[in-house]
Amino acid sequence: MKKLTIVKVGGKIVEESESLKQLLSDFSKIEGNKVLVHGGGRSATALAAKLGIESEMVNGRRITDSEMLKVVTMVYGGLVNKQIVAGLQAIHVNALGLTGADLNYMRSEKRPIVDVDYGFVGDVKEVDADILVDLISKGVVPVLAPLTHDNAGNLLNTNADTIASEAAKALSGFFEVTLMYCFEKKGVLLNEKDDESVIEKLTPELFGKYVSEGIVQGGMIPKLENSFDALKAGVKQVVITRADLIHMKAGTTISL
Amino acid sequence: MKKLTIVKVGGKIVEESESLKQLLSDFSKIEGNKVLVHGGGRSATALAAKLGIESEMVNGRRITDSEMLKVVTMVYGGLVNKQIVAGLQAIHVNALGLTGADLNYMRSEKRPIVDVDYGFVGDVKEVDADILVDLISKGVVPVLAPLTHDNAGNLLNTNADTIASEAAKALSGFFEVTLMYCFEKKGVLLNEKDDESVIEKLTPELFGKYVSEGIVQGGMIPKLENSFDALKAGVKQVVITRADLIHMKAGTTISL
Repeated sequence: MKKLTIVKVGGKIVEESESLKQLLSDFSKIEGNKVLVHGGGRSATALAAKLGIESEMVNGRRITDSEMLKVVTMVYGGLVNKQIVAGLQAIHVNALGLTGADLNYMRSEKRPIVDVDYGFVGDVKEVDADILVDLISKGVVPVLAPLTHDNAGNLLNTNADTIASEAAKALSGFFEVTLMYCFEKKGVLLNEKDDESVIEKLTPELFGKYVSEGIVQGGMIPKLENSFDALKAGVKQVVITRADLIHMKAGTTISL
Repeated sequence: MKKLTIVKVGGKIVEESESLKQLLSDFSKIEGNKVLVHGGGRSATALAAKLGIESEMVNGRRITDSEMLKVVTMVYGGLVNKQIVAGLQAIHVNALGLTGADLNYMRSEKRPIVDVDYGFVGDVKEVDADILVDLISKGVVPVLAPLTHDNAGNLLNTNADTIASEAAKALSGFFEVTLMYCFEKKGVLLNEKDDESVIEKLTPELFGKYVSEGIVQGGMIPKLENSFDALKAGVKQVVITRADLIHMKAGTTISL
């Protein structure tokens, strides 16, 4: 099977022109088939604030009423996505920006109200891998915005990590998939006070050990649990690294 | 040759959910291959106003500084484009939203400063028809936002009428193209006070006659001149009609 690298980048790196330029340059150096998944939450929060719309987060997820949905559609589907696409084309990467509605490649359902009404937030239900495979096999680099649709006319706000893992799982039947999550550290750290103490390799056993020892904690736990889910669904490896290292294969590599 | 209909719709019809829904339903009834080109100027002006950015128009064109470019990228590439794509998918039209940067299908150059500095406004230089032909031949309906790029990383604001005519000209080598422009009247009128006095057919000769008689005047003259340019470049016919008539083949049909 051919290799495919899916890189998810969020945070200010995709929202400031200099850091974005560097990121796209690094991304372009990844050999072979690739997909870029982006966030844009800071820009969405900033635009909402300018428009007098308050951003409310619950469990790290944005409450998305109809006005906020317009904001994220503009920022994720428009501003961030198209700046990335234009930036990649300028360095000869044949990018195509997609929301889940485009080509109907990713369908979701509005999250049911249990304790919290998240509003127009979608839980992914179906990924049409063939569409992505067809594009990728032609040398196209899909640039996935964190928006899906319910196939009934509604766009839905969907976490970029989830878009990346769902795409990775769906594509694992066609490619040997490496899923890379970028964050601000070089990888998962053995000692959170030492940025160089990167854990090079993680397995479920080591993960359990580090959690029980309190080495891995907080927001890193669900991130890693999601990584193991992706691996169980067929993804070859998950890499957690810093954006400037994506083309170096550095960071924490997670496998079963 | 197979037939292709390219519909350009602007104005508030694409910016209000009820009228948009009707438009998409009418558009879906057009038989065979089709492309939709949209504007979104009112929403851009409204968003800019909310953000304290003044909209300045010269000769019907928006002056686009870097802040206004962000606004139109959000509104045209995000809000309007993705709402149309999601709306079409809901009625089983396999839409794909595109700016000129996506797949690098339409390249432009920043308009040179002569008397007016339009800012980040692009004049179309090159259309990659093969990309659109490939999509259309698979049953995909491209939804074209009025944004192009310079292939050096910059998105450029480009008039939707121009996007439509450039796409029509480029595709005329592959399809028998009908280019439809929607506006608020049922067609070109013989008597501007009588909305029913639609001129059914126009040729260059009739156009010259109507202009010399003062029947066709104002903004309709450049619109028709552009139509004749498209016809000379190979487009089969241009139809000027009202949005609710696009599937009825009503309106003014212009041919050589």
